[in-house]
Amino acid sequence: MIDRNAIAAARRQLAAQPDFLRTTPLMRVPGRSLGVGCGEVWLKLEHLQVGGSFKARGMLYRLLANPLPESGVIIASGGNAGIAVAAAARALGVRCEVFVPETSPEAKRARLRDLGAEVVVTGAAYAEAFAACVVRQQVTGALQAHAYDQPEVVAGAGTLALEMEEQAGRLPDSVLVSVGGGGLIGGVAAWVESRADVVALEPQRAPTLHSARAAGQPVDVEVGGVAADSLGARRIGAIGWEVSQRHVHDALLLPDDAIRAAQRWLWKELKLAVEPAAALGLAALQTGAYRPQPQETVALILCGANFDPGTLA
Amino acid sequence: MIDRNAIAAARRQLAAQPDFLRTTPLMRVPGRSLGVGCGEVWLKLEHLQVGGSFKARGMLYRLLANPLPESGVIIASGGNAGIAVAAAARALGVRCEVFVPETSPEAKRARLRDLGAEVVVTGAAYAEAFAACVVRQQVTGALQAHAYDQPEVVAGAGTLALEMEEQAGRLPDSVLVSVGGGGLIGGVAAWVESRADVVALEPQRAPTLHSARAAGQPVDVEVGGVAADSLGARRIGAIGWEVSQRHVHDALLLPDDAIRAAQRWLWKELKLAVEPAAALGLAALQTGAYRPQPQETVALILCGANFDPGTLA
Repeated sequence: MIDRNAIAAARRQLAAQPDFLRTTPLMRVPGRSLGVGCGEVWLKLEHLQVGGSFKARGMLYRLLANPLPESGVIIASGGNAGIAVAAAARALGVRCEVFVPETSPEAKRARLRDLGAEVVVTGAAYAEAFAACVVRQQVTGALQAHAYDQPEVVAGAGTLALEMEEQAGRLPDSVLVSVGGGGLIGGVAAWVESRADVVALEPQRAPTLHSARAAGQPVDVEVGGVAADSLGARRIGAIGWEVSQRHVHDALLLPDDAIRAAQRWLWKELKLAVEPAAALGLAALQTGAYRPQPQETVALILCGANFDPGTLA
Repeated sequence: MIDRNAIAAARRQLAAQPDFLRTTPLMRVPGRSLGVGCGEVWLKLEHLQVGGSFKARGMLYRLLANPLPESGVIIASGGNAGIAVAAAARALGVRCEVFVPETSPEAKRARLRDLGAEVVVTGAAYAEAFAACVVRQQVTGALQAHAYDQPEVVAGAGTLALEMEEQAGRLPDSVLVSVGGGGLIGGVAAWVESRADVVALEPQRAPTLHSARAAGQPVDVEVGGVAADSLGARRIGAIGWEVSQRHVHDALLLPDDAIRAAQRWLWKELKLAVEPAAALGLAALQTGAYRPQPQETVALILCGANFDPGTLA
């Protein structure tokens, strides 16, 4: 089970590679300065993490916590998880194979190759690339990394919340977390427990947790929209689902136009260039989808910045 | 004279507007992770300041430290200083006129209007806009703000160095500072004094301080190149010159291609979207123009981000 002990253990083991992960800044601003009626807003600038997203924490831990065969590590991912595994593998000097579907953009493939990964392009969609990855893993015996549904991956993500509590000397009253497959919210909620309200945010067009809560169990959903690139898991992961049932206060949906508006606002007013998935927290505050109390301290996690900055104009 | 007392006084007065200025993050990474042979590199993320540059500190202080007539504040600037004055004036609820030359881009004029400033477009170049601004000031009696050469503007900029020392609990061994008119380096060097090495960095195509040091006094220079937008002062300011003679260790020049390469590297590897002027520090380290000692802690000031992020691709 992923709990505070598991996250503290992850943090201790990650310290074995002090030059890899970054302590990402925690920026604190008055709610008023964002046009929000609350005391303070914390911005955890996790998009400044190695590989441009929080994923590096979990992926490095997956690699450190398991024996690494000669064949290295293998993953199916066209996005942030693939970049994070490739970066972690390079840091440890191990081989890395990344399976991506034919639809993945050439820019992301180039980034993966740039990080030293062997990129295998196969299948019309992610599910086919994933299936090919599993077959290949059985041949090579490489350590398989999953984008969100492995204990090390979730515990590694949880170290972000531990770090935030250390930086501020306390927890905020609430933490707003973007949800795709549930790796990030699983880690954050397992660290926070009931000591603060953890609120899940999803695009209307990628509602994995919201739909699971409605159905009482994880279900497949259609995914699309502006944040599908990073929040487009088809189904909430088993670990994220389990933790969220214990410790997630609410799950809210946001329309794409509000997400894009918040993303542009973050650039225009704060000079933070982040991907759409990282803008859901501000979108929830600025649209009133989440209404904090007047003195509340709300933390937002800016989870990634692997996108084309030309789209901010 | 601008000294530590003047900067501490600026800091106290700026605290009267706690919702305006931000405490900008200080990010610390191992030198190795930037490919640099030194102990630690500190990145002062001052581009996340209000108005997207360090200028807000000095401009707010200029407004707080002087009687404000009904006609408000007036400045000639097409760049970061104009945006900072407009933002400060809006926060204080006073009028603001900004004179810009006909060559200024419409996007910057729109940003100034967005902040509530009255924008006056006049003259083929900055010098003519400045002359028209002086004439107008004599008519209206508005408080004139200068982009870099006023004591409050320099002392306000110096609060950045004070803040950095507080955040880390000590000074670094060296601070690399981009120089245009000398407002930022004047403030930083006045705070640091001889307690650390302050190194001035300029584009080869905008060498105001370097040329002044060679001539023994401020001289006019030709300006151009990738950072002319924010470092394109024609001559080092009198205040920055005076402080730099006491406390600036060295003045180095960097070619435009190294500045652009460092700017792109900051985006690609650290997801920091900054303007060219903010990339000179990394350019100096990565080109070897500045060679730190093996255990040295080097601070870089990321001074602004008012640029088109589409240029990062």
